[in-house]
Amino acid sequence: MKILLTNDDGIQAEGIQTLRRALEEISEVTVVAPSYERSATGHGITVHKPIRAEKVKLGGSANEHWSVVGTPADCVKLALEVLMKSPPDLVVSGINHGANLGTDVLYSGTVSAAIEGAVNGLPAIAVSLVDISVLDFSFAAKFTARLCTLLKEKGFPKTLLNVNIPAQEELPKGVRITKMGSRHYVNTVESRQDPRGREYFWLAGDVVNVKGDGSTDVDAAQNNYISISPLFFDLTDYAIMEKVKSWELGKIFS
Amino acid sequence: MKILLTNDDGIQAEGIQTLRRALEEISEVTVVAPSYERSATGHGITVHKPIRAEKVKLGGSANEHWSVVGTPADCVKLALEVLMKSPPDLVVSGINHGANLGTDVLYSGTVSAAIEGAVNGLPAIAVSLVDISVLDFSFAAKFTARLCTLLKEKGFPKTLLNVNIPAQEELPKGVRITKMGSRHYVNTVESRQDPRGREYFWLAGDVVNVKGDGSTDVDAAQNNYISISPLFFDLTDYAIMEKVKSWELGKIFS
Repeated sequence: MKILLTNDDGIQAEGIQTLRRALEEISEVTVVAPSYERSATGHGITVHKPIRAEKVKLGGSANEHWSVVGTPADCVKLALEVLMKSPPDLVVSGINHGANLGTDVLYSGTVSAAIEGAVNGLPAIAVSLVDISVLDFSFAAKFTARLCTLLKEKGFPKTLLNVNIPAQEELPKGVRITKMGSRHYVNTVESRQDPRGREYFWLAGDVVNVKGDGSTDVDAAQNNYISISPLFFDLTDYAIMEKVKSWELGKIFS
Repeated sequence: MKILLTNDDGIQAEGIQTLRRALEEISEVTVVAPSYERSATGHGITVHKPIRAEKVKLGGSANEHWSVVGTPADCVKLALEVLMKSPPDLVVSGINHGANLGTDVLYSGTVSAAIEGAVNGLPAIAVSLVDISVLDFSFAAKFTARLCTLLKEKGFPKTLLNVNIPAQEELPKGVRITKMGSRHYVNTVESRQDPRGREYFWLAGDVVNVKGDGSTDVDAAQNNYISISPLFFDLTDYAIMEKVKSWELGKIFS
């Protein structure tokens, strides 16, 4: 099994390196990851300037790996198009330091890298550790390696899985297959004054986990379960399609 | 009607200014837009540094407007949370100079700004002019203003509409309500050598419009129709849910 591994916390992050070592036990891993942290970059790509990719040695690995001055989505594009000699079976992104639950996946570089793999027709997994106060990725890495092995056994079905693993102080209660839930933030913008008396702003905010019907990723995390949400990148709102058609928008054109 | 207007080409772009003038005829417009071009930023937000917002005067408008050193999604967050005195009825993003069709919406700052509006519970419209060689936004602006008026007449239903308007050399043939189609790129990464002999890369590529079943945004644009795709930000792949559940992923946990 060949795995392309990336993240948005940067190539030196503990999360990706712990995961690399776990995946190397079951597969041939190529790391192509941002040179520094690129959190909250969403699905941004670098189109207005050139991108550097430096070959790097990673402890205990004979394989070629790259550190890229670019976004997570850039990394996947570069890896698939020019850096890897043959395409991987699987794209894995993570382990992110912090949750990617509910609507937060829209801002997530970690999930966007996995989506970029899916756009290119590959199965992909995004993995995040929910509790930001925890820096021990060992259980999450072991779980992800097992998930990759299972996907291999299933013949690499075209799936995009967003995995969130609770903190490890106590072991998670189990696994739930979930849908995207809802999280929102209050007090999201903080206003300050600089030393010259001019106003500036920080995006911040306190997260509000919206209780779902029990089947959301947010619900699972709240109850100490691992959540696995199958995602897709078709944003079409089929449910509202007929209603919009009934508005006869052609009439406003003339 | 109160409209929040933003874009990703920057506040000085012809597209947003032409649209502002058209919208001012039917509504009270507040422009909160990036200070410079932020194309292909996806749904990125600025969390690691402060954001500046400068009040700006716009020709012929008595209203307050802001130029923001941030991404399109930052602009919407700032506008809704601190800059606007009361919430808008509608978020409009554009007119983008260039298409946002098919999977390209994943990378689009224009569409992400509209999604950010929808995440905040507001109806939202993203508008793009398909032909990048055209800089005449007058027809597209007029069409968008009519669309806003129609949404007002319907009582501002919660919809997120991605509108692509063909070039204006000849008038579009009409309007189609579409689903997200597929576009991919070939030769997406170009390798070059710098004056010191070191390799660097450009993201580029030639677009391939994948012919759909006739009901996609890509199909509509190819046939000189205006496409209006209702979008949603729930990425859950419900179609594959049962299959993933049948894998009994709980078994790999223990």
